[in-house]
Amino acid sequence: MTDVNPPAQPRGDSPLDLPEDDPFGPYNLPYGVCTTAGRTERPHIVVRYGDHVLDAGGAAAAFGSEHAELLQQPLLGALMAAGRPVWQAVRAELREWLTAPEHRGTTAGFLRPLSEATMRLPFEVADYVDFYASEHHATTTGQILRPENPELPPNWKHLPIGYHGRAGTVVVSGTPVVRPRGQRKPPQEDAPVFGPSQRLDIEAEVGFVVGTPSAHGESVPLAAFRDHVFGVALLNDWSARDLQGWEQRPLGPFLGKSFATSLAAWITPLDALDAARVPPPPRDRALLEYLDDAAEPEPGGIDLRITVAVNGHTVSEPPFSAMYWTAAQQLAHMTVNGASLRTGDLFASGTVSGPELSQRGCLLELTWGGKNPLELPDGKRTFLEDGDEIVLSAWAPGASGTRIGMGEVRGVVRPAR
Amino acid sequence: MTDVNPPAQPRGDSPLDLPEDDPFGPYNLPYGVCTTAGRTERPHIVVRYGDHVLDAGGAAAAFGSEHAELLQQPLLGALMAAGRPVWQAVRAELREWLTAPEHRGTTAGFLRPLSEATMRLPFEVADYVDFYASEHHATTTGQILRPENPELPPNWKHLPIGYHGRAGTVVVSGTPVVRPRGQRKPPQEDAPVFGPSQRLDIEAEVGFVVGTPSAHGESVPLAAFRDHVFGVALLNDWSARDLQGWEQRPLGPFLGKSFATSLAAWITPLDALDAARVPPPPRDRALLEYLDDAAEPEPGGIDLRITVAVNGHTVSEPPFSAMYWTAAQQLAHMTVNGASLRTGDLFASGTVSGPELSQRGCLLELTWGGKNPLELPDGKRTFLEDGDEIVLSAWAPGASGTRIGMGEVRGVVRPAR
Repeated sequence: MTDVNPPAQPRGDSPLDLPEDDPFGPYNLPYGVCTTAGRTERPHIVVRYGDHVLDAGGAAAAFGSEHAELLQQPLLGALMAAGRPVWQAVRAELREWLTAPEHRGTTAGFLRPLSEATMRLPFEVADYVDFYASEHHATTTGQILRPENPELPPNWKHLPIGYHGRAGTVVVSGTPVVRPRGQRKPPQEDAPVFGPSQRLDIEAEVGFVVGTPSAHGESVPLAAFRDHVFGVALLNDWSARDLQGWEQRPLGPFLGKSFATSLAAWITPLDALDAARVPPPPRDRALLEYLDDAAEPEPGGIDLRITVAVNGHTVSEPPFSAMYWTAAQQLAHMTVNGASLRTGDLFASGTVSGPELSQRGCLLELTWGGKNPLELPDGKRTFLEDGDEIVLSAWAPGASGTRIGMGEVRGVVRPAR
Repeated sequence: MTDVNPPAQPRGDSPLDLPEDDPFGPYNLPYGVCTTAGRTERPHIVVRYGDHVLDAGGAAAAFGSEHAELLQQPLLGALMAAGRPVWQAVRAELREWLTAPEHRGTTAGFLRPLSEATMRLPFEVADYVDFYASEHHATTTGQILRPENPELPPNWKHLPIGYHGRAGTVVVSGTPVVRPRGQRKPPQEDAPVFGPSQRLDIEAEVGFVVGTPSAHGESVPLAAFRDHVFGVALLNDWSARDLQGWEQRPLGPFLGKSFATSLAAWITPLDALDAARVPPPPRDRALLEYLDDAAEPEPGGIDLRITVAVNGHTVSEPPFSAMYWTAAQQLAHMTVNGASLRTGDLFASGTVSGPELSQRGCLLELTWGGKNPLELPDGKRTFLEDGDEIVLSAWAPGASGTRIGMGEVRGVVRPAR
């Protein structure tokens, strides 16, 4: 079974009868973990299908799948660690259970409305790495924050700049985010002051989830990307710009980022994004061999169309296809020194920004460091106010004109404690 | 039972008859995890006593301890998570089993020679954070690496600078370290070159291991340090200076550090270091309230005497008592933004360096960036050569003139692959 055929026509009012263009149809099948109140209180693995969730472990047991044990877990870790052949086999089974006429009766018994599901963080995050891979973002933030320096650091076009973030504060979409407190130094003061961040921002990013580990001391080449990466999920890298600006030199961001990182509840399998693969932007510097993707058989870019909404109003539509560095290059770079991968490693793209003002993935850029407030129907915004709700959502082109939905990352800002 | 009395006089040739000044006597009792070939192949928790290890789970079961289940685990995580009252109770039990005359016969059956134990990483590292807390190190490296700038960054005396490192590549003492490959840019070149690091270095550090977690959104004040920190262990933060120098701006160290971090096999309980508490150096800037330890009831410094040896030759003796920022301040800072702690979080001090040349904890400082090679009996050294073996060891003052041994961090450099 492959990804090239569109789903069958709807046949009735069963949850299994999805419209052909449903963004969560049989060629998407993202994974999550939830509890369902009053039914299954224990966390269990589900697959989104339209506006329903399939109890994947329950269905697998009913169909006698050899993968039932992997799907009857409270987290995705065992499935993620099982490797790509298993991911493909499970995906084919799921599609068959959801689409084959002879399975409708059985499968329907394992579907629940999405509205009844309380989604949870679907895997234990091992190491979390954040990159800085958008040339537009790096250039614009360089102009805003370091106007005395060249727009891009000298290393920027030679390697995907990244750093480790805090894995323990990655939270699932829907988790409120408490405004962090910390040190900031106003330019006119001699010493820092302490208090709630005054420049709380978002960063619209795309996260990649490692399934298959790698051995310590070994590198993961560009061509092995698909063997290691289980799936893709939207991510909001909340950023306290004032804390970050004061602490960052010389060892990088720390408390300005570590208070919370929000991850989508749905992990889209990499295979669901085959039709969305696009070439990355042209490279204007020669790349070292381990990063040179010119001869790779499949293009490294992914055409995800992201929407950033503040209190229900769209403020930006960042195009992931514009990212200079691809996820495969990031993975190759992250391991070229022999650093090992673990199941559950999460690496994120960095802020996704396109060339236009309307395509910038953070408020720092959208408001030019707070100088040009956004005009929203409910008032002006430079940085986030308490009570603001941010929603990142995205879709990707699927086969035959369909869309692959990426779910969302939702978070509301709570006042500092 | 308290830490103030010296151990009993030796009484014979039993492993239980330790000399009074043994650095691994009844007032130390560090924890580790090992297998013992031919006896207990499964990883199990042990406590070091002289040159022997006590099978803690086996002894606990034999004595009918209520903590037997915590000690019969393959890792320290459950004990670490149990909290300080349990740590104290277990420590008192262990000391009684090892020292009370009526328990000698039973306890002796659970002792094995240290030489038969293969030590393992004793807990799963959750998040790893590395600080930069020695004023001497920060000043010297500033002079070496950024001579055009002030010696200390403007934030240095206001907050303990730190960043997240890679938890998945923390390895136990004794694990060989493969020289990392990566990008470096020689000053005379226009573009970076790729290959094995030419400036592989060590950093002698002290790591602190979090036991009790904290809630997301809450801060951990200075006074709660002992409630959260389970123990202390030496750490070698291997550093590829050439990779780090090229990649570090603007987001901090990444591949120059992430290839390996070596941790001692023995976790010394914080309570074992009570007699080693000393005031930190005088602070010459006013600190914000959450970092101000002037009124804390117990001094925040710890008097650990570290030795750095290269191929058996002592090259440095860094004094941990000279650190400007204390571990309690680091913990308070790390959580002041609401970032949560997990059991297994590891945070390290940064390179320990004293004011003298002979007290510097890395080769970058000891050789002034490679300009002044060390003269060792087996040849000159600027940075590390393949085959070099580094051993960090340390001790702390105990009660009544005794010493508390900190074990060691050992690692040999293997050639790049």
